[in-house]
Amino acid sequence: MNKQSDGCSPAEQEGVYELLPFILNPSNIARFEAGKVIIGDRRAYPFSKSFVTCETVDEVATAIKDMVTQGSGPWLCAVHALRIVASKHVLAASDSPKKLLSELRQARDLLVVTRPTNTAIRLRLDEVLIKATDAINNKQSADESIEASIKQILQGIYDDYAIRARAMAELIENGDGILTNCFGEAGFILALAFAARDGKKITVYTPETRPYFQGAKLTAPSILEIGVEVNLITDNMPAHIMSEGKIQKYITAADLITVDGHVVNKIGTFQNAIAAHAHNIPFFAFAWGRDDSKVVRDDIEIEERNPAQIRLALGTPTTIDSINARYPTFDITPPKYVSGIVTVHGILSPYTLNNYQTW
Amino acid sequence: MNKQSDGCSPAEQEGVYELLPFILNPSNIARFEAGKVIIGDRRAYPFSKSFVTCETVDEVATAIKDMVTQGSGPWLCAVHALRIVASKHVLAASDSPKKLLSELRQARDLLVVTRPTNTAIRLRLDEVLIKATDAINNKQSADESIEASIKQILQGIYDDYAIRARAMAELIENGDGILTNCFGEAGFILALAFAARDGKKITVYTPETRPYFQGAKLTAPSILEIGVEVNLITDNMPAHIMSEGKIQKYITAADLITVDGHVVNKIGTFQNAIAAHAHNIPFFAFAWGRDDSKVVRDDIEIEERNPAQIRLALGTPTTIDSINARYPTFDITPPKYVSGIVTVHGILSPYTLNNYQTW
Repeated sequence: MNKQSDGCSPAEQEGVYELLPFILNPSNIARFEAGKVIIGDRRAYPFSKSFVTCETVDEVATAIKDMVTQGSGPWLCAVHALRIVASKHVLAASDSPKKLLSELRQARDLLVVTRPTNTAIRLRLDEVLIKATDAINNKQSADESIEASIKQILQGIYDDYAIRARAMAELIENGDGILTNCFGEAGFILALAFAARDGKKITVYTPETRPYFQGAKLTAPSILEIGVEVNLITDNMPAHIMSEGKIQKYITAADLITVDGHVVNKIGTFQNAIAAHAHNIPFFAFAWGRDDSKVVRDDIEIEERNPAQIRLALGTPTTIDSINARYPTFDITPPKYVSGIVTVHGILSPYTLNNYQTW
Repeated sequence: MNKQSDGCSPAEQEGVYELLPFILNPSNIARFEAGKVIIGDRRAYPFSKSFVTCETVDEVATAIKDMVTQGSGPWLCAVHALRIVASKHVLAASDSPKKLLSELRQARDLLVVTRPTNTAIRLRLDEVLIKATDAINNKQSADESIEASIKQILQGIYDDYAIRARAMAELIENGDGILTNCFGEAGFILALAFAARDGKKITVYTPETRPYFQGAKLTAPSILEIGVEVNLITDNMPAHIMSEGKIQKYITAADLITVDGHVVNKIGTFQNAIAAHAHNIPFFAFAWGRDDSKVVRDDIEIEERNPAQIRLALGTPTTIDSINARYPTFDITPPKYVSGIVTVHGILSPYTLNNYQTW
């Protein structure tokens, strides 16, 4: 991480906490409070700002599977869930360290399988558990260790968001029309906020993102909240808007990026990237952590969800039950359609990622 | 029209009326009965098979605007609506021919503006009105003339459907996966039915087609009804399904095709065509009538509907009302992405359409 020479962190220097919209404030995403994990319910937003409270690890796992949260939400819920286990052992001091470790590992295993494509859950859980194991072995509080790990991770993350968002914001030009897909999280939203604060007039087009409408529910209201012009469109419109000359950049988050430069993100990202390429519009994707187990395309398992969801819109049937459906959740954009990966090192060619140990 | 040498029309020879699913039977699309126009309500299908009854030309115009029907429905409703006017004048024999003609022209002008992109409404109304005017001038029944014109047009259309569908079916191979967009009407559905009857095993992927879900509501149930395997997907999935190797052909209808080969069809057609091109998948579009007023791309006016519809899914809000939206109804696929135009002359290059006086 590139800390600034004056000792102020990049996130503090950019004032990100004042710029972030409600839904992206970390304490609104997920927090641990009085033995429970409180999760911001993204299914209810933007109509209400409500929370789901989980008292057990099972409840957290169910909430993650039930799409209460997404993006960076799942792993943050997962690491907070470890505190449900650890905080109880502080109270029950007679328990053996071995039993605590075993319970933490059981919780980890339960949480890891909630979302196969979301590798951040596993990475963050293991990162926190290594330190917690050290603490236990040194007869220190596992709960305090986990709490400190989460705080440290969040500080690092918001510094990273600030650095990446600044790199992307520098490429945004006055008058740009920007297409996105699904919900680009804090990196994307902060890039827009920085560009707007720098005096650039921009307009964002956000596809609604079927079947869960994250674009309509999360992205568009967040962009409105930071004071940038936003237009909601349906998922079949991006190429037409491009043909009108209204899009100058296509920018998304990424659920994961392979070491050889394939961008895995919410379904639709790929076809928008092909259309952008055909219209000479560059595509930039925000990286989030190098995963050495995902080197090439074949290392990616695309999550296929319950196809019954495709026959529903906000719970109402769109067709009769006897119709078959498919529900791939993510797609893979090969590096030939990717103009740049937004990293802490700046915006990199997707073909050069292997030159960097971390992104 | 190429009538077969045995005197049997192509539609009869192919047995199209037995193959057509409920929604595509012409009398279920729109009919004139006892002074009223009865319109199959595609908004209610596939959950119920209900009809909207219109007693006045105004009511028909409103029904067309309200999307009660689409595809070939609007012009069929419009020409039947002329009979509401003409049949009353049979009853009121004292009315002057001048007054009847004037009322028919008023009705025509009201009906023409219901859907700016749907040129078939104007073409069919004018075709019927020329003959009705002749009848009136020859002191014959305008209503009988309109009835006969509609019967003749429908016979011609279903012969044309049979010829075009046969041409397309011949190109479909055993094992093909086929992507479509929106609702391809009788030409597309019959091509599938012919291929299946010829013993070819095919699988169709149909995007749901936001914001009105015609793919979910009309296309998927129609394909199921003719006994062909169908998978519903959301509008952001086509390129991903292509990348799995599951699509061998992309086939759609067209609301209009310019003389220089631009395909105007439901929004999403264009981006699927770009993705198909990137995956070496040919794109075929069913032509429906040469329109000499639409020669080049600039002759096309893309209908922009009420953006409030984009913030709704089946009437339920997907986001808050303060979010701006865009609602272009159609898009334009340039000929470079079009592999063939399905016409009564067979499947033509989009660059050669001007060589043919009719398609």
